[in-house]
Amino acid sequence: MATADRTFDLAVVGAGPGGYVAAIRAAQLGMRVAIVERDKLGGVCLNTGCIPTKALLQHAELLHTLKRAEEFGFSFDNFRADFGKAIQRSRRAADRLSKGVEFLMKKHKVPVFAGEGRLAGKGTVEVTGADGKMEGLTAARVLLATGSRPKLIPGVDVDGKRVLTSTEALILEEAPASLVIIGAGAVGVEFADIYAAYGTAVTLVEMLPTILPLEDAEISAVLHRVFEKRGIAIRTKTAVDEVAVGADGVEVGVLQEGKRERLQADAILVAIGRSPNSKVEGLDPLGVEVDRGFITVDDAMQTTAEGIYAIGDVTGQPLLAHAAMHEGIVAVERMAGLPARMDRDKVPSCTYCHPQVASIGLTEAKAQAAGRKVKVGKFPFIASGKAQAMGETEGLVKLLADAETGEIVGVHIVGAGATELIAEAGLAMALEATPEEIAATIHSHPTLSEAVGEAALAALGRAIHI
Amino acid sequence: MATADRTFDLAVVGAGPGGYVAAIRAAQLGMRVAIVERDKLGGVCLNTGCIPTKALLQHAELLHTLKRAEEFGFSFDNFRADFGKAIQRSRRAADRLSKGVEFLMKKHKVPVFAGEGRLAGKGTVEVTGADGKMEGLTAARVLLATGSRPKLIPGVDVDGKRVLTSTEALILEEAPASLVIIGAGAVGVEFADIYAAYGTAVTLVEMLPTILPLEDAEISAVLHRVFEKRGIAIRTKTAVDEVAVGADGVEVGVLQEGKRERLQADAILVAIGRSPNSKVEGLDPLGVEVDRGFITVDDAMQTTAEGIYAIGDVTGQPLLAHAAMHEGIVAVERMAGLPARMDRDKVPSCTYCHPQVASIGLTEAKAQAAGRKVKVGKFPFIASGKAQAMGETEGLVKLLADAETGEIVGVHIVGAGATELIAEAGLAMALEATPEEIAATIHSHPTLSEAVGEAALAALGRAIHI
Repeated sequence: MATADRTFDLAVVGAGPGGYVAAIRAAQLGMRVAIVERDKLGGVCLNTGCIPTKALLQHAELLHTLKRAEEFGFSFDNFRADFGKAIQRSRRAADRLSKGVEFLMKKHKVPVFAGEGRLAGKGTVEVTGADGKMEGLTAARVLLATGSRPKLIPGVDVDGKRVLTSTEALILEEAPASLVIIGAGAVGVEFADIYAAYGTAVTLVEMLPTILPLEDAEISAVLHRVFEKRGIAIRTKTAVDEVAVGADGVEVGVLQEGKRERLQADAILVAIGRSPNSKVEGLDPLGVEVDRGFITVDDAMQTTAEGIYAIGDVTGQPLLAHAAMHEGIVAVERMAGLPARMDRDKVPSCTYCHPQVASIGLTEAKAQAAGRKVKVGKFPFIASGKAQAMGETEGLVKLLADAETGEIVGVHIVGAGATELIAEAGLAMALEATPEEIAATIHSHPTLSEAVGEAALAALGRAIHI
Repeated sequence: MATADRTFDLAVVGAGPGGYVAAIRAAQLGMRVAIVERDKLGGVCLNTGCIPTKALLQHAELLHTLKRAEEFGFSFDNFRADFGKAIQRSRRAADRLSKGVEFLMKKHKVPVFAGEGRLAGKGTVEVTGADGKMEGLTAARVLLATGSRPKLIPGVDVDGKRVLTSTEALILEEAPASLVIIGAGAVGVEFADIYAAYGTAVTLVEMLPTILPLEDAEISAVLHRVFEKRGIAIRTKTAVDEVAVGADGVEVGVLQEGKRERLQADAILVAIGRSPNSKVEGLDPLGVEVDRGFITVDDAMQTTAEGIYAIGDVTGQPLLAHAAMHEGIVAVERMAGLPARMDRDKVPSCTYCHPQVASIGLTEAKAQAAGRKVKVGKFPFIASGKAQAMGETEGLVKLLADAETGEIVGVHIVGAGATELIAEAGLAMALEATPEEIAATIHSHPTLSEAVGEAALAALGRAIHI
């Protein structure tokens, strides 16, 4: 490759959702841009994260519904759900999308350099391929989008059989008979849903008082109740203090409010969070500040070193693909002198279990802790005509509005369709809409989205259907 | 009942979604309000329309998915789908919601007068019960929410066996072997979906060039293709000019672009539109103007007679429950001196077939006909990660924005989740948001709602994922 072909306006390190979106936006803005990726295009999200998980959750949802087949008037004999085929379908979805990213890179004429990237000085990225060969790129600007990886329990090795992280849980050949999931954040909860649907006896262990501890407590409580009803064992306020991996299974020592116990399972899934991939070689000499593992950035996503930007998981909360994508766009637009700004307070968050959970903004507890006086409007799906027609009546929409200004402070949803319903709340918060404006918007009948309108009305003291 | 108990600030005639919502809002505003209903609380929508239809469509959706069971790794023998049980479940959903309206009337202290209402003079409503007994109410204002009924083919009697309207199609004991549906609007299309899922050989006949003729032609074309692939026979530009009902079936004479033919079926479903129930006795002497069957109203929903208001289907397009509900609120708020206005240009419209169809604002053809120059942004679901994960990749989002002002002129969706996705578009249009604002809003990944954001980006010439 000629030197000219290795000289760019921008080199993006990491082709996850943040990185590849940034590369596309950069190309749209006329930059010469290259992308470096050591694994598959699409990164964790697309290959070993969101996408295959959501594919498996689609199976889980169908299985939940089929358990109520009689209610729907369906009958059949010898029902079998092949877990391996679910994994295969999820792989096909991931592969199709990874090919899609490849197509997008070609379309936008973004060369892909396969290998591990390191910073070899200001404006120089060295890429070491799997074969050990090294290639050097020069770029006026570098964007680090190196992502994150599952956090591990020190001393407990991931073997893909007894000890899993989300990565291995996505490619098991069959569902284990029993599984202890350590950590009840989005990842833990989604895998609890998937494996329980395939007959695994799941125990969900969480150190904090509620599952999905980042969500509003009232929302988590609904999911907790539904999960327990479905046979998922949940232990909150429970710390894991020992993991003993044997030939036949795993023993997990837990401490629950002073009570010590040992849980047995065929396997454990470690879902205690994610660690940033911030050990990019060469960061330090260039003056890129890293705080507790996360790269420090400003609202243009620039690091403390001029010309070096960072986006996505490697820069810290929220560790969400759509945040990374947006940050990628913001970073590149700012490089191009356009006005753009990342507002991490307005990032929706979704968990695709059943019932689904989605939220944006502050929880009621966080609003109170921040000293904000809020009006709370709630609408339960049991009062929704569409939810009744679907036979999916669990859950509620909870909307918090500032008692003085009317500003929407947060929207929290648990129930069917939550992850799509949050889009309206996202637009409302982005546009600083008031509950009055949501309430005055005509929502189609019968849809689940009416519940968002009714929650807004409820916050104003005038819900119609409760 | 004492005279005092029959004197009201407002008498609502008709307890469909428009009427009962108006009554609740009136009670919230401190009015003494009564409601008159000759049949069940909740009206057509709740009892013989939207709600039971959507319940049946939920069955149809599951059946569509189960046809792809192998792809999901599910296997079973002797699958049977009991149509009667589907009908039963739909009835239970409707009954629960009708009881819900009863509860709401009690909660808001709205007395329900059972019977047919007539206007016996200014401020007087006479209610004749099923037993022939008459009761008189006096009310400062009267709100007519008498709704509509299926339009019939002159000379073709509905017998509930060979000749059906939506009302009878919702309570059949079993699915007919073959069915000709006359009219491919929302009702015709939804029943085509339901009955085809239960194995009926469906022929959908439409006089106009496209099915769902009110929708954007590109959207209709997607549905047309999917329906045909599924085995639903579609005949557009086809007029019905003869219906012969026999003991064994029905023969339908059709004329398709000059070609005459006879279709045979076990039954026909007449879905050619709805007629307003505007023959309320006593309207005429009070000076209430009726235009081609529809009661004329102003933007406060007041008729041409002072103190007499009308809302919903009886006042004309759009014949949609959520329009009626909103009109009910507008009418009552205006009575109370509050600022409120009905804007019929911003009413979303949904068809709950599979894939779903939803839209708001102008179609591309209508925008052109109105002389508006629009930018069109399209995003196909095949490029959506969530659609891929779900295995539901048919369809697209199409967003039209005014080429000069950027104003969103219309949003049209066909695909999974369309009827919920339209909510964000509804809020956007209500708030006069621009495509830039939708694009700048962070949509959760992976969700179908990202397609709305991408369609907005596409209208701006900078979609990411296509």
